[in-house]
Amino acid sequence: MEEALKKLPRTTDPRLLLGHAHADDAGIVALTDEIALVQTVDFFTPVVDEPRDFGRVAAANALSDVFAMGGRAVSALNIVCFPDSLLEPGVLGEILAGGQDKILEAGAVLAGGHSVSDNELKYGLAVTGVVHPERFWHNAGGRSGDVLVLTKPLGTGLVSTALKKGKLKEHEATLIATMAALNAAAAHAARSLDDERPGAIGAVTDITGYGLVGHVSELARASELRVSLSASSLPALDGALEASRKGFHTRGEEPNAVYAGLETAEGIDKHVRSLALDPQTSGGLLLCVRQEDVEALRTRLLDAGTGAWVVGSLSDGPAAVVLGE
Amino acid sequence: MEEALKKLPRTTDPRLLLGHAHADDAGIVALTDEIALVQTVDFFTPVVDEPRDFGRVAAANALSDVFAMGGRAVSALNIVCFPDSLLEPGVLGEILAGGQDKILEAGAVLAGGHSVSDNELKYGLAVTGVVHPERFWHNAGGRSGDVLVLTKPLGTGLVSTALKKGKLKEHEATLIATMAALNAAAAHAARSLDDERPGAIGAVTDITGYGLVGHVSELARASELRVSLSASSLPALDGALEASRKGFHTRGEEPNAVYAGLETAEGIDKHVRSLALDPQTSGGLLLCVRQEDVEALRTRLLDAGTGAWVVGSLSDGPAAVVLGE
Repeated sequence: MEEALKKLPRTTDPRLLLGHAHADDAGIVALTDEIALVQTVDFFTPVVDEPRDFGRVAAANALSDVFAMGGRAVSALNIVCFPDSLLEPGVLGEILAGGQDKILEAGAVLAGGHSVSDNELKYGLAVTGVVHPERFWHNAGGRSGDVLVLTKPLGTGLVSTALKKGKLKEHEATLIATMAALNAAAAHAARSLDDERPGAIGAVTDITGYGLVGHVSELARASELRVSLSASSLPALDGALEASRKGFHTRGEEPNAVYAGLETAEGIDKHVRSLALDPQTSGGLLLCVRQEDVEALRTRLLDAGTGAWVVGSLSDGPAAVVLGE
Repeated sequence: MEEALKKLPRTTDPRLLLGHAHADDAGIVALTDEIALVQTVDFFTPVVDEPRDFGRVAAANALSDVFAMGGRAVSALNIVCFPDSLLEPGVLGEILAGGQDKILEAGAVLAGGHSVSDNELKYGLAVTGVVHPERFWHNAGGRSGDVLVLTKPLGTGLVSTALKKGKLKEHEATLIATMAALNAAAAHAARSLDDERPGAIGAVTDITGYGLVGHVSELARASELRVSLSASSLPALDGALEASRKGFHTRGEEPNAVYAGLETAEGIDKHVRSLALDPQTSGGLLLCVRQEDVEALRTRLLDAGTGAWVVGSLSDGPAAVVLGE
């Protein structure tokens, strides 16, 4: 769709505070001097077996953009493509219940939705959040010297691929819990720090289909900085490295490397490289934090129950992504 | 989806000013004392051949709920299911261009979107509008004595069905123009009257898949009033009655009659009854207007370039829908 959108006549509207220019997934539209709307939509085919889990993961994933921009989720609409002839209606009920779990947890209101008949089940949300028009985070805000902190471990694509082949079943529960976890707590922790120490947080992005490497490359381009990722510091989801060693890769890794123009240092373990490239479903936030505030941020994130791994840093450009030791 | 939603544990949130209780298609969520968000989403498979026309019709249809509630459209997100393997990317570009035409015409901002691969093409929008939290229209606001004014002719399902069979090609252009027309001008005209003469407009709904009869039955139930529709006054889209006479009916008519519990007076032309039951794509607004304000409303609607047909009236309940002479 991005290609098709690029060919449309450019319409610039001063109300659009953030659009597709920096490859952010969501858009921000000014409403008043004090309020901007964060708008995002995401839906996909099942990534886990249990309908309720699927609903929870899909909703957490769709809500994530609002948190990645520092916003508060206000309302959500269900988006459903459902194969009436193949699945029982109870399955849909479970999916919607899972979605509602996460909408409520996010403090948002379910305002409606739309369903169509389809051969293939798909579910997700369109979400509206709010943020101050001068205080949102985006991926163009990184500064040379910033440290990169990641809030969820990597490898949902690897473990999911293994599970689809009936392997690594012992890691399924952790995978689902990770993907169903909202990025709300991480965003809240970072926001509170940023409010107390203005400028603590530079850029923020969430990690989804382009993997850690792909999303930091967008940040590198948008911020015109060099991103150095530390292979030895990347957190792996339980079972992710094992899945990689056993050959359970998604097809997204190499396209993500190309998309990012990734430079890999010599001697980097290829399974760790896979982790860095692995497409994530409902991945964590990647926060660019001022060096002096790293420990304060990590403390708040850990207190909030999220991960807080230092995975790299930003330095002067040109834009590039390097995976080193 | 409605059935599945009903089975979820009821969550009442005071911010949800309007939800599914009265079968309105969209939801309204309070944001501040002055601002409520109108949230709606709709998407469907192609209803016309030309991609750009399809984009325009789908977008006009999705935007309509905001106008039916008296709101102003603020932002829109594209929702795309696209068969990459079957259609050229240029087709998607045309669809999105058509959608953008209508988003711009509505005064809204395109804030992003999401696309997935699918066997079957689908397109639509998730839309956010704003309205004053105490000044929105809904279908529970009808009053005994109100007159029903419809802003678009009926029969898009009938003519579309004929076109699918290669018939009535001469009416295609009018059909497309009708479906692609925004309900913005009608809503604006009604709003201006309602601002000048508070109470002029009672309930409003837009006419879509349940047909005129189905949507007025929701209004009858929500307002606990009897709706009398006048068969001889129903406006027909060019070719619609001919399509009915030639047997080009959708499968929606009788389910709509059952849904509404329609009572049809003796001697009513069955083709006019079809018109009343015909599922509409991007149909007009149905406005309940105070008797003394009918002519003022009609004048404003006609000046705004929309239709303005008096098609019935409301009287004391119990709730019912009657199609008479």
